[in-house]
Amino acid sequence: MYLTMNRFRVKTGQEEAFEAVWKSRDSHLKTVDGFVSFHLMKGDETDGVRLYASHTMWRDKNAFEAWTKSEAFRAAHKGAKSSSDMYDGPPELEVFDSVQELT
Amino acid sequence: MYLTMNRFRVKTGQEEAFEAVWKSRDSHLKTVDGFVSFHLMKGDETDGVRLYASHTMWRDKNAFEAWTKSEAFRAAHKGAKSSSDMYDGPPELEVFDSVQELT
Repeated sequence: MYLTMNRFRVKTGQEEAFEAVWKSRDSHLKTVDGFVSFHLMKGDETDGVRLYASHTMWRDKNAFEAWTKSEAFRAAHKGAKSSSDMYDGPPELEVFDSVQELT
Repeated sequence: MYLTMNRFRVKTGQEEAFEAVWKSRDSHLKTVDGFVSFHLMKGDETDGVRLYASHTMWRDKNAFEAWTKSEAFRAAHKGAKSSSDMYDGPPELEVFDSVQELT
């Protein structure tokens, strides 16, 4: 399995607006080949910044890369920059390969 | 759902030793009430340090907290500090609440 995690630094007070962007988005992820699961995770607040992380699990790296080249990806990210005053800096993408799993 | 993520900065060359510690550990997590899933994730390498993250998903925060007070927790973490020369700094724990989910 392959995990892509985007970490977002959201200004305190903008949490609701940030979550609304995600909840109103029709990502079509569930129809994408190799998609396993998606979670939007709300973390702790420190010094006026709330940490969020989007976790998307894929069957493998190839499935993720095919998605980034698809029309579904472009549609899901349309307008993603329109509310950039919600953020304290740009998102950071981290990618991981699963090396051990218990379910 | 509640996610606990521990981030580990492992010195380059110590990846195999680090993974061996996890693979040899009998965590009994699968028998713990409220446990959902565990993944050990291998990230990118930068400046001689490899990022790893352990992701443990729980039914809720209460399930996680009950586990940290259990004998199973103590047993799983016994000897965790014995190989600290593998690391570039201490692990960082981050906890998250799931606010959106697609599976």
